[in-house]
Amino acid sequence: MSLPTTRTARLATWSSNLTYSTLPDPAIQRTKDLFLDWLGCTIAGRSHPAVTAIVKFVKAMGPTSGKSELVDGQLEFTTSAAFAALVNGAASHVVEQDDLHNGSITHPATVIFPAALAVAQDVGADGKDFITACVVGYEVGCRVGAYFGKSHYENFHSTATAGTLGVAAAAAHLLKLNPEETLSAIGTAGTQAAGLWQFLLDASHSKQVHTGKACSDGIFAAYTARDGLLGTKDILEGPRGMGNALVPGKTKPEAIDGDLGADFEVLRSSFKWHASCRHTHPSVDALLALMGKHAVAFGDIESVLVPTYQAALNVLGMSGTCETVHQSKFSMGFVLAVAAKKGQAMITDFTEEDLKDSQLREFQGRVRMVLDEEIEAAFPARWMGRVIVKTKDGRELEERVGFAKGDPEVTLTRDELETKMRSLARYGGITDGNKVEALIQRAWNLENETDLHGFVF
Amino acid sequence: MSLPTTRTARLATWSSNLTYSTLPDPAIQRTKDLFLDWLGCTIAGRSHPAVTAIVKFVKAMGPTSGKSELVDGQLEFTTSAAFAALVNGAASHVVEQDDLHNGSITHPATVIFPAALAVAQDVGADGKDFITACVVGYEVGCRVGAYFGKSHYENFHSTATAGTLGVAAAAAHLLKLNPEETLSAIGTAGTQAAGLWQFLLDASHSKQVHTGKACSDGIFAAYTARDGLLGTKDILEGPRGMGNALVPGKTKPEAIDGDLGADFEVLRSSFKWHASCRHTHPSVDALLALMGKHAVAFGDIESVLVPTYQAALNVLGMSGTCETVHQSKFSMGFVLAVAAKKGQAMITDFTEEDLKDSQLREFQGRVRMVLDEEIEAAFPARWMGRVIVKTKDGRELEERVGFAKGDPEVTLTRDELETKMRSLARYGGITDGNKVEALIQRAWNLENETDLHGFVF
Repeated sequence: MSLPTTRTARLATWSSNLTYSTLPDPAIQRTKDLFLDWLGCTIAGRSHPAVTAIVKFVKAMGPTSGKSELVDGQLEFTTSAAFAALVNGAASHVVEQDDLHNGSITHPATVIFPAALAVAQDVGADGKDFITACVVGYEVGCRVGAYFGKSHYENFHSTATAGTLGVAAAAAHLLKLNPEETLSAIGTAGTQAAGLWQFLLDASHSKQVHTGKACSDGIFAAYTARDGLLGTKDILEGPRGMGNALVPGKTKPEAIDGDLGADFEVLRSSFKWHASCRHTHPSVDALLALMGKHAVAFGDIESVLVPTYQAALNVLGMSGTCETVHQSKFSMGFVLAVAAKKGQAMITDFTEEDLKDSQLREFQGRVRMVLDEEIEAAFPARWMGRVIVKTKDGRELEERVGFAKGDPEVTLTRDELETKMRSLARYGGITDGNKVEALIQRAWNLENETDLHGFVF
Repeated sequence: MSLPTTRTARLATWSSNLTYSTLPDPAIQRTKDLFLDWLGCTIAGRSHPAVTAIVKFVKAMGPTSGKSELVDGQLEFTTSAAFAALVNGAASHVVEQDDLHNGSITHPATVIFPAALAVAQDVGADGKDFITACVVGYEVGCRVGAYFGKSHYENFHSTATAGTLGVAAAAAHLLKLNPEETLSAIGTAGTQAAGLWQFLLDASHSKQVHTGKACSDGIFAAYTARDGLLGTKDILEGPRGMGNALVPGKTKPEAIDGDLGADFEVLRSSFKWHASCRHTHPSVDALLALMGKHAVAFGDIESVLVPTYQAALNVLGMSGTCETVHQSKFSMGFVLAVAAKKGQAMITDFTEEDLKDSQLREFQGRVRMVLDEEIEAAFPARWMGRVIVKTKDGRELEERVGFAKGDPEVTLTRDELETKMRSLARYGGITDGNKVEALIQRAWNLENETDLHGFVF
């Protein structure tokens, strides 16, 4: 088989050929930051009913002993790579604290790490192999997401669609597939890729299905490519491929292979500091900055106008009255209410009690979003925030932020990441602080690990 | 949870409530016909490299003992329902001999039977349960496919997209899910549904991925719905659902629930008699009729003009020079050449030798398709055929057929189905004729089976 001269083939070739020794240190360090952040998210989300249902499926359909581990060690079984990734991928996207790659509007960690960890455990990869595969997974998943662009994101959960291809590339790297086989894996991944936003409208559990299945589907694509199943060679740009079928006329082809290797997408992902939908973060930051600067308290605020970008209007407009804790994190009004009242919007700040808080609910009703053409034009390259507050004493105040806390330009420090990790572990019910500290240290020394088993709480 | 008053909820409720005792006898008998036809296709396709790769994946990732069986008994292992269905679903769509439901342009058997058989074996269902679940699966899958319509089919392999929902409904019925849970299963199925035609352009193996994954994804949806995972409630017609995302502005909503129970989609599926893509069949029938009526021989034909419908132009125009046996079944020119030369186009009539036959290749080059507005308007409700032949002695002859052999209006007899079954089993390498005859008799008595294990060659 010879390689075609398509953009997708160039991306597959680059992915297959990437080696640890050529990675710049910042990419290595950031990958470790992202991995630790993902571990915390996974343990924090493990008790969600969708995860529980998927665990039952794994017990019914999969082996209950194998080389790959569930991060939730209390489940006390191991399984195969596809099933471990299915569970860990579902768990890590529950608490809305996982990273967000701005340019592609995807959450790469929740698909790349669970899949790469499960495959690394399956094939006995070391820390350097794992880091390299994760860099590949981020690169492919984020570039595909950027190729699809924000138009795709209107209906599709891009983390799942683009993510499946990223998973396939990461798994292919760990399986040491050559460029042709990697291209096959990407093709087979793309023709399985799915995930629609419809679930947001009724607070159902598809979000966990999307990330879990992106993991297992991408792993399926890589293993079967190794074993001779031919994937189509131009799944992105071909006439019946993903671009034409899913984003007709609105793709960005140069995103697929432009400046390959010149920079790394792992360096362009944002950590979440607030526990809500990422589309609320720039506005939360702007509101908190405004309240600090002008000494405005929660009770002083009459109304908040939030000029923002279209994707925020689309996604945040779907949660209706936000009857569940999960939906409440997707309500701009409710999230700003929480932030204004509590001075923060961390994971412990969204509870069933809060849903019944009439002060929060009234504030929620006084928040309105509108489209801001300037912010829309900059999105998704930049996620800017703006709020206009009317106070009860008649003032009109305005604040803007150019980035959200956790964006690549203002990334989290390792101290902040450790703080967030401890908080997520506590939220996940982990009481053994020593174990958490030991896992933190393993993450910081990931490149020296010879065996990737034991990342289990 | 209360049920919404959507079309999809009505379909889910009907699916959950259907009982064997209310099925008309023709629907029961036809389901058995379709099941036998599927068994033959499965064994005929078992040696395809895609199936081999998927079997390796199952051995690596799944249990190698379980309640569900592979139709290819020579593999000598059993596994869980999801994995057995994955393999059997992939195998049954290889040889292009499986059924075709005209109105939805889907191949229901290749997704419904493997999934329902695997789940039936898992839960210990009997023949009546199995038949009822298959009727449900056909109904949901075909109605969803008809809702998407021929516009969806331009880019998507509808068998996979609509089929995933049909599988979920069939599996839900066997798991005895209530209407709310069945609706959940359909929602979770729909948000996983995928499958693009791009693979046809480079003769890669995604077709087997699509049908196998439709089976395992639909099974995932049903089992997780049973265990508390909430699927979205309006995956078809919701604002971010499949209709708006995948077929914007071109769906047929009344197909979802119009006249539910008044008739059965199993009665509207067509058997394949020729071994080529179903889109070639009306033209093959017309050509063979013309050659018989006018005593025209293969060597007499100067050229063939084939007025046909748009979907045939789209799908049959993608196979390029048809370098593989599989591609050759998707070339109108090559298929008509084979039929004209051999007087038939059975599974043994497409070989590597035939690809090198210069007479066939020359004939292929003298076949041209054009759009026929009248045939297009009737499609997909009717699949009509028309050919205009110029002979070397200067005659111009024309023939039309209103249906293809195997269509519901001219369905295959049980004798013909048995003949086809024996031929498929021989093609699949089965030499024990007694075993084949025993399986045929089991299929004809399916409603009396108390245990569905042992449909193994």
